[in-house]
Amino acid sequence: MGRLITRRRIVRASADGARISREEKLAVEEPLEIRFNGTSFTTSMRTPGDDFDMVAGFLLAEGIISRTEHLVSMRYCAGTDEEGHQTFNVIDVQLGFGAHPPDLAAARNVVTSSACGICGTNSIDDVSKKSSYPLDPDRGHVDVGVLLKMPDSLRESQNLFSATGGVHAAGLFTTDGELLLLREDVGRHNAVDKVVGAALRERKLPLRDAILQVSGRASFELVQKAAMAGIPVLSAVSAPSSLAVELADETGLTLAAFSRGSTVNIYTHADRLRSGS
Amino acid sequence: MGRLITRRRIVRASADGARISREEKLAVEEPLEIRFNGTSFTTSMRTPGDDFDMVAGFLLAEGIISRTEHLVSMRYCAGTDEEGHQTFNVIDVQLGFGAHPPDLAAARNVVTSSACGICGTNSIDDVSKKSSYPLDPDRGHVDVGVLLKMPDSLRESQNLFSATGGVHAAGLFTTDGELLLLREDVGRHNAVDKVVGAALRERKLPLRDAILQVSGRASFELVQKAAMAGIPVLSAVSAPSSLAVELADETGLTLAAFSRGSTVNIYTHADRLRSGS
Repeated sequence: MGRLITRRRIVRASADGARISREEKLAVEEPLEIRFNGTSFTTSMRTPGDDFDMVAGFLLAEGIISRTEHLVSMRYCAGTDEEGHQTFNVIDVQLGFGAHPPDLAAARNVVTSSACGICGTNSIDDVSKKSSYPLDPDRGHVDVGVLLKMPDSLRESQNLFSATGGVHAAGLFTTDGELLLLREDVGRHNAVDKVVGAALRERKLPLRDAILQVSGRASFELVQKAAMAGIPVLSAVSAPSSLAVELADETGLTLAAFSRGSTVNIYTHADRLRSGS
Repeated sequence: MGRLITRRRIVRASADGARISREEKLAVEEPLEIRFNGTSFTTSMRTPGDDFDMVAGFLLAEGIISRTEHLVSMRYCAGTDEEGHQTFNVIDVQLGFGAHPPDLAAARNVVTSSACGICGTNSIDDVSKKSSYPLDPDRGHVDVGVLLKMPDSLRESQNLFSATGGVHAAGLFTTDGELLLLREDVGRHNAVDKVVGAALRERKLPLRDAILQVSGRASFELVQKAAMAGIPVLSAVSAPSSLAVELADETGLTLAAFSRGSTVNIYTHADRLRSGS
């Protein structure tokens, strides 16, 4: 966990005036830049580790790749910074036949004449158009009791959260409740990208019988990431947004949220949920 | 609150097999696109409302503007979508003299030959270079007891959270604990942008005697947003990341986190915290 946690001496202050000095553990946050053949595409903050998985998952969610073969290579930038250090914060990607590379030159073109009407519906149509893995209503059925145990199972396996209290988690479960893969990150999206990207790199897509459990809220982008990976059920501990629900509805994904102990809210496609066993 | 909340009939399922149908309120999420003179700059998901504030705050945090005068105009896209609706999801910005407009054409240039070493230190230097409002160690002093009351004060004023359970909040307080401004949003960053942008548009920058209280974690970007607005103290309910702490240290910002009831952790510049009064 070398690069995942750092330590710092802090002051803990109390309302009664007491102050103590103590050492606290912090979750590490560093920028990661993705390039295509040397051209910069995007930079985001993340917890270092499983970087290739994160890149693969992110590119899948964006509709740039959908299969392992679309990724010819990923490698850390070969050079070093001014001080001669390799930071492991820049990944250069080479895409293969069948991928949909973004048009980097035209990415920020003049759009005055059209597309004034960007709205949630456009965003939903966009995801539906890009997805290579339509969801099957007959796959991914899960028992309510099994689903309700996933948040605890996730939390128990969160080493980084236990140490720092400062990270989100995403876990991939079987429909029997077995935890297949867990990733933690300072960014909610990154944790999901790392889980999904790992599955993609192991040629396990689409994840037709998997449940994705996340530690926080369910936003549009998390539903997008699940749908693009062919995951039929997304379960969140906290609330969903309106657009997350609409996208789940449209793509045929079962969206569960407020999964807390004895009850869970099912917002879309409740048919996949079974009661009793 | 018309555009802030939507309703949906859902299924609440229990482990014991019970299922009830009920109506739930959802926080609305919609895309917002920012353009400069018709050229697209960025699109992000947000809760509609206070959009001009959000754009102003975002541009301030990115170092594109630092004063009210730098914003000549902001207006919703004049056109409509294919169905003839104005979505109010596209804002066109005209920048004035003194602003630092991003070079949209060169934004994604070839960088193979240099800058392999992107790292946290670069990101910190970048913020320090861009900031127009250096923080004064003699301003923004606050009593620990006053600081500890801010999370409750914020929560009590969160109408949208009470209704949906699904939004983040940012609040601007005086050093006496008076809540000046509160914004809620499905995105953590957006809530801060809306608060800071509102202050900028009211010509209240730099916010030398204000405390920014946020409902979640303290990431690099939240510290960046506070520092760029000249806010001396950022207090978070949850954990900070390593880079958030480093940036706070470097810019002279007091970073408080895990502010929970009777204790709070002070990660940087603890001198601004007073005990007793």
